[in-house]
Amino acid sequence: MATRKLLLLPGDGIGPEAMAEVKKLIDMMNADFNAGFETEEGLVGGCAYDACGQSISDADMDKAMAADAVLFGAVGGPKWDGVPYEVRPEAGLLRLRKEMELFANLRPAICYPALAATSSLKPEVVEGLDILILRELTGGVYFGEPKEIIDLGNGQKRGIDTQVYDTYEIERISGVAFELARTRSNKVCSMEKHNVMKSGVLWKEVVANTHKAKYSDVELTHMLADAGGMQLVRWPKQFDVIVTDNLFGDMLSDVAAMLTGSLGMLPSASLGAPDEKTGSRKALYEPVHGSAPDIAGQGIANPIAMIASFAMCLRYSFNMVEEADRLEKAIAAVLEDGLRTRDLMSEGMTEVGTTAMGDAIVAKY
Amino acid sequence: MATRKLLLLPGDGIGPEAMAEVKKLIDMMNADFNAGFETEEGLVGGCAYDACGQSISDADMDKAMAADAVLFGAVGGPKWDGVPYEVRPEAGLLRLRKEMELFANLRPAICYPALAATSSLKPEVVEGLDILILRELTGGVYFGEPKEIIDLGNGQKRGIDTQVYDTYEIERISGVAFELARTRSNKVCSMEKHNVMKSGVLWKEVVANTHKAKYSDVELTHMLADAGGMQLVRWPKQFDVIVTDNLFGDMLSDVAAMLTGSLGMLPSASLGAPDEKTGSRKALYEPVHGSAPDIAGQGIANPIAMIASFAMCLRYSFNMVEEADRLEKAIAAVLEDGLRTRDLMSEGMTEVGTTAMGDAIVAKY
Ligand SMILES: CC(C)[C@H](C(=O)O)[C@@H](O)C(=O)O
Ligand SMILES: CC(C)[C@H](C(=O)O)[C@@H](O)C(=O)O
Repeated sequence: MATRKLLLLPGDGIGPEAMAEVKKLIDMMNADFNAGFETEEGLVGGCAYDACGQSISDADMDKAMAADAVLFGAVGGPKWDGVPYEVRPEAGLLRLRKEMELFANLRPAICYPALAATSSLKPEVVEGLDILILRELTGGVYFGEPKEIIDLGNGQKRGIDTQVYDTYEIERISGVAFELARTRSNKVCSMEKHNVMKSGVLWKEVVANTHKAKYSDVELTHMLADAGGMQLVRWPKQFDVIVTDNLFGDMLSDVAAMLTGSLGMLPSASLGAPDEKTGSRKALYEPVHGSAPDIAGQGIANPIAMIASFAMCLRYSFNMVEEADRLEKAIAAVLEDGLRTRDLMSEGMTEVGTTAMGDAIVAKY
Repeated sequence: MATRKLLLLPGDGIGPEAMAEVKKLIDMMNADFNAGFETEEGLVGGCAYDACGQSISDADMDKAMAADAVLFGAVGGPKWDGVPYEVRPEAGLLRLRKEMELFANLRPAICYPALAATSSLKPEVVEGLDILILRELTGGVYFGEPKEIIDLGNGQKRGIDTQVYDTYEIERISGVAFELARTRSNKVCSMEKHNVMKSGVLWKEVVANTHKAKYSDVELTHMLADAGGMQLVRWPKQFDVIVTDNLFGDMLSDVAAMLTGSLGMLPSASLGAPDEKTGSRKALYEPVHGSAPDIAGQGIANPIAMIASFAMCLRYSFNMVEEADRLEKAIAAVLEDGLRTRDLMSEGMTEVGTTAMGDAIVAKY
């Protein structure tokens, strides 16, 4: 069978610890199931800056472009608070997203039954929650120009960022939203602020046109993004797929993440367009949580979001649907068994560290 | 005693119904306590468009500029979905904010003890919650230019919005944040996305400088806005005053509002700078909820947010601190008595309509 080329970019903070648990799974799948994963490693974020003065080197960027999929840990930490803006840790992640053209960011917010009680929301509000936030990832205010600070004299500066969206960018992300909805509960809610933003006016119009032209079998609703944030807190189960822009997606997916009890649980997939000939698409998988420098190196980080990101990788990059299901079931099973990392700990449960959690999931697989 | 000039702009949807209950309070205060309120009325939003093709007429704008305070209901509704962007209902509100220079938007999120159980969050997470979101209201992506949709040909359009912040704008809003914190728990958390936005870099820098120069007695922390949204859901009581920009403030205050159980409860104040001679400031008070066209005209809207906005008006525009306290206590008291509008209704409570709720609050005052 074909080899499967993975680039691992553990990054900073708890990234390497979480990635170590995924490596165990990769080794196990290679050894026991002949999965044919070939891995390379690279540096991204603060550690890359320390090594070469860049948040990701051109060589590692090339590796990312050549890989079948990239597994990404986390970047950043107070150590690099003072580095120049252009080479700050986050710049490495943004470069990967932009140059790999990973415009479609899938952020499922799933509430594992065993964890419904750990959410700050009432159990009945989150139990069984299974929604998908689809965030546009290569446009909007993240990349629009001008993006600068101008010195106006008189001690005054001006900070400028530009939100830009073209028709084709909105078309392709809404296409992905409708396709995904068809594999789920067939509902899409599009969120923007058309009442104050021109990009929002265009967003709403293009989503509606795309729907009418090709996906009228899917139920489409529109909601203002501020109201959307509110509705996510009020009654999140009303949603199936939410499609929104880069910045609103950043905010809304973090709010949605918190509904599920812990950020330590949530994976994400960032996908490019399918290649016209081969159908394969560039992809990067990363946990929604950050680098958590405060707990890095202590062996207490929750590796589940990273492992669940690998499950998404199996599903979306390698069409290993059965393996992905099995891995997700293994995660649910260790939670049912009462194993908890510190972030999830509650009375009557068994607290375990990062490696013990990883080992338990490998054992259940 | 001096007259107190109020301009009432009830607007659309449930705005007029809610405003009617405030009028009762004004009449009562004039009659029983010789409060000296003089009221005028004007049109804003869809009803203004219907009357004169503008979302607010120049004449009403002049009245707003001349008033001691403006009480604003709500604007918008499906009826005006098709009107041109420049005269859409929201434009009237944005014009008021901009021309009156109401840069400081105070959005308290308070959880009334009687309502802790109606929140979608666990009671222990929201009980006793008392935080204040301070939103910059006249800058950022709401007003920056260019703001346009360009036709690129080939069926492609480009939507553009521009986020702009100058040093002085950030200075004055953070000054208000620190001053407010001193009257509360002395803590400010500033939220931005300095990791992706240049305006965020400037925001963080100016807030830190303002703190250092004049307010180092106040505790200041910084948080990324996405993490902030998450923390609001996870453990909102960690905050006292949150200061943030126009768009993040829009999102975060709606999330915060939902913590308290109902949007129907929450007031807001939008304030200008104090006049150098008189110390008086332009001000507009409005409920956080919208026009709720689906329930308009049925007599079931919750008037409490509008009434609580009037309480803020008493406090901030007329320094009627005792009267404001008394009105807020009257609201809490009717809730303790078990009176609920439909949005708040739960078992064992007494459902009342808009006027009955207003009457009960007047009676308790
Ligand atoms: C690290 C940061 C640049 C990033 C973002 O803002 O997109 C993160 O918050 C995320 O959501 O992936
Ligand atoms: C009505 C709309 C223009 C407004 C805003 O976006 O500011 C509203 O959502 C608010 O929060 O006051």
